[in-house]
Amino acid sequence: MKRFAASIFFLICSFIVVNVMAQQQKTPQELAQNAVEVRQSVFKLLDAHMEPIASMARGKLPFDAVLARKNSQRIAQLAAMIPDVFTMDTRGVEVETLALDKIWDNHDDFAAHAQDLVEKATAFSVAAQSGDQAATMKELRPMGSACGNCHDNYRMDVD
Amino acid sequence: MKRFAASIFFLICSFIVVNVMAQQQKTPQELAQNAVEVRQSVFKLLDAHMEPIASMARGKLPFDAVLARKNSQRIAQLAAMIPDVFTMDTRGVEVETLALDKIWDNHDDFAAHAQDLVEKATAFSVAAQSGDQAATMKELRPMGSACGNCHDNYRMDVD
Repeated sequence: MKRFAASIFFLICSFIVVNVMAQQQKTPQELAQNAVEVRQSVFKLLDAHMEPIASMARGKLPFDAVLARKNSQRIAQLAAMIPDVFTMDTRGVEVETLALDKIWDNHDDFAAHAQDLVEKATAFSVAAQSGDQAATMKELRPMGSACGNCHDNYRMDVD
Repeated sequence: MKRFAASIFFLICSFIVVNVMAQQQKTPQELAQNAVEVRQSVFKLLDAHMEPIASMARGKLPFDAVLARKNSQRIAQLAAMIPDVFTMDTRGVEVETLALDKIWDNHDDFAAHAQDLVEKATAFSVAAQSGDQAATMKELRPMGSACGNCHDNYRMDVD
């Protein structure tokens, strides 16, 4: 079965296999660089989904409960990926990153911060079900705090 | 309420607001470049979640039903984001991208291809619930095909 699946996979999805093979031949430096790019992808997408919500809060976009619900669900999904994409310890490897070394000293606490964002985004999403702007926006503050709390602890200060 | 939420937001999550303000001042070229980076982030994460599954298929990693289930769920979540991150039409703007122009001529069909991956990843995830390697890996082929079908139609040929 393994061989069968493998041969099928080579045929139908060779691009991934090529990537995997390249991955296996990567140097520790290249592996670390890839890990940084993967985690930055999570934050790029978190940011992209936060932006319209921030614009709604600032009155730059009209309130859109459907968009708020969808984006908050995705923020929760992406937040759940954070602990996994920080599994690879890149301390001591020369990479350009805002991630502080103490992420890997306190990985459980770091994961708990990500879980906090999952929960706050879910609450925001649930509130958006009501379609009520005030009730929904009341849940924005805890979601924003969850972002900030983690950045204060585990991200280089960029302000 | 809007003002209240906005002022809170400034305090607790200024980094996002700064980003949004920067976004508003961006040129069409910069906006297109950002759109490309956002969509490439989706594919970077799809790839990162596919890789261990491909390694299992090739026998390079032991079969891990829990990982297969988790990653396939995430592949389904990320695939659902694809149509949205391709909302901005970047045809005619100078950006480095593998995305073919016809994505925007056939956006509904493009979205249907993404939905196909959502469904195939969900089926793979459901099969992984059984913990049975053969049953799970049987669902790998359709998931890989869903990737390939969309690439054949809408991605520059990189093979």
